[in-house]
Amino acid sequence: MILSPQELQKKLGLHFHDSALLKSALTHRSAGPDNNERLEFLGDAVLGFVIAECLYYKFPQANEGVLSRLRANLVNQTALAELARQLELGDYLILGSGELKNGGMNRDSILSDALEAVMGAIVEDQGIDVCKRWILGLFVERIRALSLDTWEKDPKTRLQEMMQSKGLGLPVYTLKSKSGLPHQQSFCVECRVSSLDQPAVGVGSSRKRAEQQAAEEMLARL
Amino acid sequence: MILSPQELQKKLGLHFHDSALLKSALTHRSAGPDNNERLEFLGDAVLGFVIAECLYYKFPQANEGVLSRLRANLVNQTALAELARQLELGDYLILGSGELKNGGMNRDSILSDALEAVMGAIVEDQGIDVCKRWILGLFVERIRALSLDTWEKDPKTRLQEMMQSKGLGLPVYTLKSKSGLPHQQSFCVECRVSSLDQPAVGVGSSRKRAEQQAAEEMLARL
Repeated sequence: MILSPQELQKKLGLHFHDSALLKSALTHRSAGPDNNERLEFLGDAVLGFVIAECLYYKFPQANEGVLSRLRANLVNQTALAELARQLELGDYLILGSGELKNGGMNRDSILSDALEAVMGAIVEDQGIDVCKRWILGLFVERIRALSLDTWEKDPKTRLQEMMQSKGLGLPVYTLKSKSGLPHQQSFCVECRVSSLDQPAVGVGSSRKRAEQQAAEEMLARL
Repeated sequence: MILSPQELQKKLGLHFHDSALLKSALTHRSAGPDNNERLEFLGDAVLGFVIAECLYYKFPQANEGVLSRLRANLVNQTALAELARQLELGDYLILGSGELKNGGMNRDSILSDALEAVMGAIVEDQGIDVCKRWILGLFVERIRALSLDTWEKDPKTRLQEMMQSKGLGLPVYTLKSKSGLPHQQSFCVECRVSSLDQPAVGVGSSRKRAEQQAAEEMLARL
């Protein structure tokens, strides 16, 4: 049963001026042209800003690399899907019949996109201040749980330590391609670990950055 | 000669409560630990949000893909460096001696990072509303010049049309690697054109998205 956006508003603790916006935010593209993709674009941007600003003030000693990693830990498909499940957003999604049959209401990508779209609807309907408070309320436990000690270590170091603690071999990094002019190069690196068949891929403006990104993706997967 | 942040405030049309923030925003990491990297993190996020919100309202018919491309056209290293030059930001940069000798005050990456850091300083010192107005003022001409017609075409189509109009051969896309589990895959694609030696690289959650990103990078380079 699909529940009404009115009930969802209660659960979100908000009263929309234009509840059609919230309905759009819950509508997956499989259900038609008036869907949540534009609101997701807006919500993704406001979420990125609100979390960046929060981390900037909460961790005055953290450098840019640490702040980026902290944000990537809070804002990613898996984390957003968990928060969406916490809000039981799946019960309110409007999906096309194909996605309904395929269990789309419980798919990480659909839940995470819908949560971002809800944030977009909030910023459009209620303005940035209300939206900021709402986002920070949603993330409060996760932000409180962040410890700088963990994140001051870069992803390659954390991946290596995780593999060692499990008695597994070290990760292997392979440069897959390199392109672009000097000062504008792009490196593509694969990271493989013995416990998973599939490598993780990272891209960056230096080989080291690409390796760090691949390690980050591998950590998320493990 | 390095000019004072006070003069820059006049040029920016702002009066900072804490002018030390503006000084930090102008300080490249080569000049020491109190540099602009944290403010750049904050500024990048606020810029992404302000431009996303502006495009969302200005182009109510544009879908998410078009909005993303419009934003990438406005917010990229080359465009930001041009705006930084327009503000003569290079004259106010604080660089380490190595970067000074190497002409760092005119390097795109340094100028673009400093401009983002100035935006971070403005949002910290003056709040989001002033920062938003300032950013939109800076981008006003570029936003006015955007035409939806151009951007409704995807990057692969635009690249193909550009190559044809120059009488050159078609771009060639090659899948370099593919990794990850179903629903979380990552594709790495190279795009080559006959007029450039180096390929452009794109990464995305589908082969098509990776190709579009590679085409986008190639367009930027051409």
